[in-house]
Amino acid sequence: MKASAELDAADPLAHLRQQFVLSAGKVYLDGNSLGPLNRKVSAHLARVTNEQWAEDLISGWNTHNWIDLPLTVGNQLAPILGARSGEVLCCDNLSINLFKCLAAALELNAPRRKILTEAHHFPTDNYIAQGLSQLLGHERCELQTALIENLDQTDLRDVAVISLSHVNFKTGELRDMQRITQQAHAAGCLIIWDLAHSAGAVDIGLGQHQVDMAVGCTYKFLNAGPGAPGFLFVAERHQHANVALQGWMGHADGFAFEEHYRPASGITRFLTGTQSVLAMAAVTAALGIFESVTLSDVRKKSLALTDHFLDHLATCNWTRNLEVLTPTEHAMRGSQVSLAMEHGYPVSQALIDRGVIVDFREPNIVRFGFSALYNQFSEAERAAQILSDILKNEWFLDPRYSQRNTVT
Amino acid sequence: MKASAELDAADPLAHLRQQFVLSAGKVYLDGNSLGPLNRKVSAHLARVTNEQWAEDLISGWNTHNWIDLPLTVGNQLAPILGARSGEVLCCDNLSINLFKCLAAALELNAPRRKILTEAHHFPTDNYIAQGLSQLLGHERCELQTALIENLDQTDLRDVAVISLSHVNFKTGELRDMQRITQQAHAAGCLIIWDLAHSAGAVDIGLGQHQVDMAVGCTYKFLNAGPGAPGFLFVAERHQHANVALQGWMGHADGFAFEEHYRPASGITRFLTGTQSVLAMAAVTAALGIFESVTLSDVRKKSLALTDHFLDHLATCNWTRNLEVLTPTEHAMRGSQVSLAMEHGYPVSQALIDRGVIVDFREPNIVRFGFSALYNQFSEAERAAQILSDILKNEWFLDPRYSQRNTVT
Repeated sequence: MKASAELDAADPLAHLRQQFVLSAGKVYLDGNSLGPLNRKVSAHLARVTNEQWAEDLISGWNTHNWIDLPLTVGNQLAPILGARSGEVLCCDNLSINLFKCLAAALELNAPRRKILTEAHHFPTDNYIAQGLSQLLGHERCELQTALIENLDQTDLRDVAVISLSHVNFKTGELRDMQRITQQAHAAGCLIIWDLAHSAGAVDIGLGQHQVDMAVGCTYKFLNAGPGAPGFLFVAERHQHANVALQGWMGHADGFAFEEHYRPASGITRFLTGTQSVLAMAAVTAALGIFESVTLSDVRKKSLALTDHFLDHLATCNWTRNLEVLTPTEHAMRGSQVSLAMEHGYPVSQALIDRGVIVDFREPNIVRFGFSALYNQFSEAERAAQILSDILKNEWFLDPRYSQRNTVT
Repeated sequence: MKASAELDAADPLAHLRQQFVLSAGKVYLDGNSLGPLNRKVSAHLARVTNEQWAEDLISGWNTHNWIDLPLTVGNQLAPILGARSGEVLCCDNLSINLFKCLAAALELNAPRRKILTEAHHFPTDNYIAQGLSQLLGHERCELQTALIENLDQTDLRDVAVISLSHVNFKTGELRDMQRITQQAHAAGCLIIWDLAHSAGAVDIGLGQHQVDMAVGCTYKFLNAGPGAPGFLFVAERHQHANVALQGWMGHADGFAFEEHYRPASGITRFLTGTQSVLAMAAVTAALGIFESVTLSDVRKKSLALTDHFLDHLATCNWTRNLEVLTPTEHAMRGSQVSLAMEHGYPVSQALIDRGVIVDFREPNIVRFGFSALYNQFSEAERAAQILSDILKNEWFLDPRYSQRNTVT
């Protein structure tokens, strides 16, 4: 195992860290939940607020092209996702975008009428599918749940669309997008990937792998701020689909105020109502950093960081026997390491109390999220050491650490 | 007619203007489209970005109650709308919120299956209804269009829900919420009011008038910034409804990550996915000004401003014969004056070029929006005078003024 200092010194992305506001005494390993503030975001947001909005007011929609932000930000996202310009929109939130994609996919692939979701999908994705099924009625939309590992033993004959996570939020397992997409297509299904935990951390080839649709959010590895807007990808070949949520921003000529909906051609028909310019301003500035890096460099460092963390866990008596839920195989690992442990919640709180910011997921999982844009190898080592100390000294037994927060 | 200076001097709301950033040389009469920046919004947004997000990162969801913002901001909106705490959410955009309300109302009022919309509704509202009807199929959801004036001659027997605007966006006509809501209820229909052009400008009694549901946006008279989030009101008696767009934020215990959707009790089940904290921060700060005023004072000044503008139009040869689309009767007037004129578009551009910021709506309407929070009586006079000069001197014939912008 190389020394952390040596790895940090050789890190070609090390200079990016200075763009972010990060507390000196803390190790921030929760960028898989909420990315930190990039100073350029702060500056751009102030500019949009105090100059564009304050001074130009209504004319800002034209002079600053606010009206096009969902598409222009989508075009910034496209290369990060391996998509083409005109295939991605930044808008609404992931849940809403998934509803639009699921409804469109069902119609595109009629008379098939099933949505196949995975049992371990991020819950909101399944809730949205459940809501759509309830709205349409079971004769038009039935849900089926499967383990993605068993897809080849699953009857897919009536499945219109498969909805699944690229990276499992609990375990950090990365799915084989190419193989699973091919499997879906071979069975006549469309596929919608949830990229929440991979966008900005993994090199994703949506176009290369012939993915049909995808959704995601920008508040994790894309660092656009708490609750930042979602995005959706619809491959060009599917952009003639009807959109269930059809607002004026998806109209071919919204400002003609026509009585009847006439969908825009291309991806913009997937827009609904007016989007928050302030929220979009944060996204556009946050994505700027990706113009100076390649996703393959990001991915390489991400894997090196999680390797380094796992290596350190393996060297110590107190951590070497912990159950690592995240696959050790690189091709199956996202940008986090998930540990299952008996006292998961109080351990996560003890870590946070000692400056290692992680999070907890039911029932017993502590997640250590690593971002190649700002995390250091020395931080991976330090997190492992502090975890070891907590377990060795049973600091997690402190009753303070058992008090639950609303958001965990 | 009283002198503008006298009216301004006697204006009890005059001191509020200083909170807003307004260019000295301009008369901003487009607050019915985009409200100006309140300095407190700018300060709060910087605080949320550079302190809450930057320093507290993921813990901000708990320590700053970001997670509750849709409800807490909704509770700020409630008194502005004449609703009770727990009946309003700030979230998503108006179009999405209308979809949720329409779908819920259809189910609540089954087996009725029609949505009645008005021909002159804001287009996005009708597009959303058209999309829902297309999604559900005509046998489950049929659209019917009527003129609201003719509601008593309209067959409402199969109408589940009536969707209409409180203030017509083109004419500025304010509808009689009490009478129309009673008419709807007498015929067994539910009613959803679009408050986009009345919230923050008119004293609205949602509770008093037994309104069922309402939607709106916060970027007009509520001054929360370009594309700021929407809101929805659902009367407590209807909050058991199923919500078609059911994301994790509407779950009874979202952070338990349960496999099946279990709706929260109360209004929060109308939430979808994660909301932008930055966008919400702007709304919460923008609404602060309403804690220091009563809506009846706002309404009184709003009517006095539009009266003053109409009085000045009537005094001058060049404007006295213009077609005023906005009702002169106070009870039927929103917070704008709409003039129909042959050269509407170039006149609107000539006004903007001379510092009177108005907007244009097809086919020939120039809208003068007045906000009691910052507009002055002297501005109403000045706008009338400049309009008169433009018409008198035919300045609108300048070819520059015929070039169309994307957003008008």
